[in-house]
Amino acid sequence: MPKSRQKNAFYAQSGGVTAVINTTASGVIETARKYENKIGKVYAGRNGIIGALTEDLIDTSRETPRAIAALRHTPSGAFGSCRYKLKSLEENRREYQRLIEVFEAHDIGYFFYNGGGDSADTCLKVSQLSETMGYPIQAIHVPKTVDNDLPITDNCPGFGSVAKYIAVSTREASFDVASMAKTSTKVFIIEVMGRHAGWIAAAGGLASSKDTEIPILILFPEVRFDRKKFMKKANQLVRKHGYVSVVVSEGVKGPDGKFLSDQGLKDAFGHAQLGGAAPVVAGMVKQDLDLKYHWAVADYLQRAARHIASKTDVDQAYAVGREAVQMALKGENAVMPAIKRVSNNPYKWKIEKAPLDKVANVEKMMPKNFITRDGFGITEKCREYLTPLIKGEDYPPYKNGMPQYIRLKNKPVKKKLKTRFTP
Amino acid sequence: MPKSRQKNAFYAQSGGVTAVINTTASGVIETARKYENKIGKVYAGRNGIIGALTEDLIDTSRETPRAIAALRHTPSGAFGSCRYKLKSLEENRREYQRLIEVFEAHDIGYFFYNGGGDSADTCLKVSQLSETMGYPIQAIHVPKTVDNDLPITDNCPGFGSVAKYIAVSTREASFDVASMAKTSTKVFIIEVMGRHAGWIAAAGGLASSKDTEIPILILFPEVRFDRKKFMKKANQLVRKHGYVSVVVSEGVKGPDGKFLSDQGLKDAFGHAQLGGAAPVVAGMVKQDLDLKYHWAVADYLQRAARHIASKTDVDQAYAVGREAVQMALKGENAVMPAIKRVSNNPYKWKIEKAPLDKVANVEKMMPKNFITRDGFGITEKCREYLTPLIKGEDYPPYKNGMPQYIRLKNKPVKKKLKTRFTP
Repeated sequence: MPKSRQKNAFYAQSGGVTAVINTTASGVIETARKYENKIGKVYAGRNGIIGALTEDLIDTSRETPRAIAALRHTPSGAFGSCRYKLKSLEENRREYQRLIEVFEAHDIGYFFYNGGGDSADTCLKVSQLSETMGYPIQAIHVPKTVDNDLPITDNCPGFGSVAKYIAVSTREASFDVASMAKTSTKVFIIEVMGRHAGWIAAAGGLASSKDTEIPILILFPEVRFDRKKFMKKANQLVRKHGYVSVVVSEGVKGPDGKFLSDQGLKDAFGHAQLGGAAPVVAGMVKQDLDLKYHWAVADYLQRAARHIASKTDVDQAYAVGREAVQMALKGENAVMPAIKRVSNNPYKWKIEKAPLDKVANVEKMMPKNFITRDGFGITEKCREYLTPLIKGEDYPPYKNGMPQYIRLKNKPVKKKLKTRFTP
Repeated sequence: MPKSRQKNAFYAQSGGVTAVINTTASGVIETARKYENKIGKVYAGRNGIIGALTEDLIDTSRETPRAIAALRHTPSGAFGSCRYKLKSLEENRREYQRLIEVFEAHDIGYFFYNGGGDSADTCLKVSQLSETMGYPIQAIHVPKTVDNDLPITDNCPGFGSVAKYIAVSTREASFDVASMAKTSTKVFIIEVMGRHAGWIAAAGGLASSKDTEIPILILFPEVRFDRKKFMKKANQLVRKHGYVSVVVSEGVKGPDGKFLSDQGLKDAFGHAQLGGAAPVVAGMVKQDLDLKYHWAVADYLQRAARHIASKTDVDQAYAVGREAVQMALKGENAVMPAIKRVSNNPYKWKIEKAPLDKVANVEKMMPKNFITRDGFGITEKCREYLTPLIKGEDYPPYKNGMPQYIRLKNKPVKKKLKTRFTP
């Protein structure tokens, strides 16, 4: 079959999805469509990189412009994502070779990989191997992660919207507790994501502001949980304000170094139960202070909450998708569009190019000076960093009271390889 | 002290608060202010009826029109609520007499009690006793409850917004699970409020619609939990769609008649833990099907979520407040403004007068024909009932990415009674 002059592009979503990863997808696809003389079709991997390995590609050219535009306001991964980490080149060269084979068969010259730290590493390896295999591909990593832990980029698309959701929800629930505290609940506990870094937990601190002060204690994964100190503080706040709200990260560890959520809960039959951190902290509050409590676990609600997405986040998620394509058109390889903060007040940002070998396998932790000295709050510096990221609302369209999220047709591309591959 | 010709009004918030109970407060206060020749001041009870018993009244006339207007978009109870049920007249006549004393001292002629079933009963008793004590008060009950269990009224202010929150959140999380299911989470479980009736759980069914079908199983408190049947169904849906979302009411009971959430979870030290129903169901899914799951407990987030309130709900919450005052001005006593559904398509409603003795102590359960025969879903009839209640969005104003909710000054009214009262 004769190959077209324009190389096709491959795009895949990787790891935990977010409220705006589809926004990035629309940024990639809409921009690619503008340069049809340079980029052929955009093929998406069904269920992320697994789609590439199994030659299960989706032809996005079969989707209408309207459908692709609607991705901008649709949460989750429209092509399916996966938790599948490619092994190292040494361990499993076969997987990387298979990727190149599939790309070659479908005349793919651009590889856009939309994910976090692990994906950046995969993306880098693909770029290196393709060179040595004589089938060069321009590999561009497109940042996405609610964990906000990628280096170089000031923040990660996906994080701002989770942060906004947690800040808004914590404020709302705190108003609720405040009005019930006289005769009922005095301690409200909300559990948030972030196993390694406290970025999302920190966002809970934004629930309180100068014009709307709220007594909040944050339990960060960065700070070892000190039960006595925490109870003293919680009790003080309840005495002073009548109530307290606690934001607990799923990644908080006790003095033994184990996750609080891994406390070995057992049901009546002795079966282990996977509890969250929130009910564990609630149980301790009951034991130590005997105060009435309520607890919530936001789980997927937080990262899927497109209905309360941050406009900053949506704009940036789109921009990294668009700029990834622009970088590819400029001949770049093994790079990632990164967000650079230009100024705080007014908030200005731009997209810069980051070399992928500086991104892969580096985890950005929260700076020490973002956490208050007592370990339970966020500093002014942290607040300055976070505030612009949750700014602005970007509501999806509604019909009959429900947000109208798009589902694509996701038509498969005809397979060309004779060999099968089982990941 | 000479009494003014215009009697003052008393307003109090009772029981669990909602996203729109303050909307009702603004309806009461703004309407009363329009008739200053007939109604003097509106005094609010600090922390609900406790404020009346302890003569701890708030002078709402000290609040600006702007502040009262902002109540319309502020969740929770601005004057404080309480969980305090007055005993029966026979058991504790003293409490009712005290209420009348306080009302007489402050020249209160109108009693607006904003709450659910218990409050309706209190309101009725106050009206009866005040007559016999020679200090007649017009007692108007103003409906509010996320539980949606008041009779006569088609629905209860507060419910529509919780319903919308649960429907939207379940849809969003389901999109998330769908994109992760290939290699990760296949069962998502969300726990919702409603100890006695499944109204809120039913709203989870709205996440799925004709244009956006989602495999959902609902566990209603009305249907005894059948583990085997549930697992079979869940497994079928996972095989067919790749994933399933489960909406579990906190009030679901097992075959032994006990709440699923009261399964006697114990921590490593043997201490009892108050688990939710969601982690219990998740544990069973792990044991029986060995499928990867995630679970969320929405708790207060659901009833405080003013950011995604239903416009229908906001409009109705305001209307019952306004009409309560209008009824008082017409000389009504022992009544409640009730919502009457005039038509479904287009949805039309009006406010009618309901006699309080028909409201008090009656709990409206969900009709049997609202639940599908298999016990895991909602019928078309239920969908027709629910859909208009979540219709429309009514966003609060935002500043720096955060909703601007009002906090009132809540200035106390000078006490006039010499006696103290300890509830």
